[in-house]
Amino acid sequence: MKHNTIPSFTDILVAYEKIRKLIHRTPVFTSAGINKLCKAELYFKCENFQKVGAFKFRGATNAIANLSMLEMKQGVATHSSGNHAAALSLAAKLKGISAHIVMPENSKEIKKIAVQEYGGKITFCKPTLQARIETLQEIVKQTGAVEIHPFDNFYVIAGQGTAALELMREKDELDIVITPVGGGGLLSGTALAVKGMCNTTKVYGAEPLGADDAFKSFYSGNLIPQTDPKTMADGLLTSLSERTFHIISSLVDNIFTATETSIAEAMKIIWQRMKIIVEPSSAVPLATILENKNEFEGKRIGIILSGGNVDLQKLPF
Amino acid sequence: MKHNTIPSFTDILVAYEKIRKLIHRTPVFTSAGINKLCKAELYFKCENFQKVGAFKFRGATNAIANLSMLEMKQGVATHSSGNHAAALSLAAKLKGISAHIVMPENSKEIKKIAVQEYGGKITFCKPTLQARIETLQEIVKQTGAVEIHPFDNFYVIAGQGTAALELMREKDELDIVITPVGGGGLLSGTALAVKGMCNTTKVYGAEPLGADDAFKSFYSGNLIPQTDPKTMADGLLTSLSERTFHIISSLVDNIFTATETSIAEAMKIIWQRMKIIVEPSSAVPLATILENKNEFEGKRIGIILSGGNVDLQKLPF
Repeated sequence: MKHNTIPSFTDILVAYEKIRKLIHRTPVFTSAGINKLCKAELYFKCENFQKVGAFKFRGATNAIANLSMLEMKQGVATHSSGNHAAALSLAAKLKGISAHIVMPENSKEIKKIAVQEYGGKITFCKPTLQARIETLQEIVKQTGAVEIHPFDNFYVIAGQGTAALELMREKDELDIVITPVGGGGLLSGTALAVKGMCNTTKVYGAEPLGADDAFKSFYSGNLIPQTDPKTMADGLLTSLSERTFHIISSLVDNIFTATETSIAEAMKIIWQRMKIIVEPSSAVPLATILENKNEFEGKRIGIILSGGNVDLQKLPF
Repeated sequence: MKHNTIPSFTDILVAYEKIRKLIHRTPVFTSAGINKLCKAELYFKCENFQKVGAFKFRGATNAIANLSMLEMKQGVATHSSGNHAAALSLAAKLKGISAHIVMPENSKEIKKIAVQEYGGKITFCKPTLQARIETLQEIVKQTGAVEIHPFDNFYVIAGQGTAALELMREKDELDIVITPVGGGGLLSGTALAVKGMCNTTKVYGAEPLGADDAFKSFYSGNLIPQTDPKTMADGLLTSLSERTFHIISSLVDNIFTATETSIAEAMKIIWQRMKIIVEPSSAVPLATILENKNEFEGKRIGIILSGGNVDLQKLPF
């Protein structure tokens, strides 16, 4: 595996050929009401309809598709309690290999059930980052499983880029493509795909103001890790890695932030107008558009709706 | 207008040619998880993605498409506070004609706003059926507007049948098509369309146990009006008309009922598994399948998801 390199556009094309029969080709939705509200043409790539309800299935599937025969026998492992854990579990199950998932013992019941349903083998640990890392190392040592990082991984980044590839193939002549940014896997893959297809299309990141490490890193030119993130967008709490920061610094045109109020408002607009369920992280791009209407007016804008896994008992509106 | 006749299959084909450029061709969704749960193949026709968020736009559009030039000038009218009011308002607006909507003065703010947004002219009345009928008669007398009944109307029934027409054209060899039943416009149109295309495909109605007039009428052979309906499925409170009862008696193969618990459970399953927003009425067909698994096991089943207009502040789960 090429651990420390950056995927090229070709790597995304190759990733797509490897995974396309295993993933859903998700639809692109539009809403006349939202277009009117934003005075722009918005094209929503519905990764909430992807398997496991999130784009993460693309990257996990591509990572597994690139294992050697020996690695396949030993399975894969990760520490995560979110969409990546579910995605890796299902992607492994579909290939008939094991997925070891390290989760904090205080994870929500709904997340444990999701991973178990998709066939992941859970090992619980104390709810600290150190415990997660140590437990994962122990499992890798015992089983020989290959660690698949949720975003700091060559094949994961290439896999995530395939959502934008499908979008750009379906809707050419986009002025802008915008995605949420947490660890930067989706934004990196998207930037590689979009710039590979059309160098004049702008790529923007959208980040909660309460977890704005990518915004700060982008503008300072130095990787500034996130400390104490505060946002309902629970998929966007993590910091960039050196690798995703490098790709984003090189290829992304701008990063916008959105307040919690805007994120909740944007999420409600998507639910009410489009009749689809998206998680708060997915609403951040529309939130930034609503906060910066002048920047986006009159433009043709592609938006990656990253996922739809939300606790229906705890809606932010 | 043919006021007292029953549409034929040809009338549905004609309706489709008249309205197809004005409506959304809605997608057909599947869910591996729900198929597994029901041990059947379910094809969901997503009318929650139709304009105004409900199949009602098809019937309203067809009714307006069949007005004479003189009638067009005088506009249309109805008494309704639900999806038909919004549908008639938008269908009229798109043709540049007036829609007069009689609504009870205690209607929810959200429903008033929807009708106003779509350009309907609201006249408020006291919240009794008699006041609604009298107010509507007064408006028809004053303006010459043509009353468009929400379901007891030749062209409305033919228009509603076009959802099943699209479904059957896309997914042939369905064993069963099932729709919710309230006034019976959707079920009547669906039966006419399905039996016209494939006589061996069964057509079922799905009704809340708390508003089971169609079930009782179907099995007794006599039209039994609904009194005191009690269900969260607020689109299914009304009784059949003589016309829809006649069509349903002749063409529908069976009617199933579902409890409120099953309806809420089915609605939650659709939201969580499919990541789409449907209103309680839309969940009734899946609820009846969950309550009668043996009847449906191993079958290829088309389901019309009737709409997605739901108060996000008042979810039944």
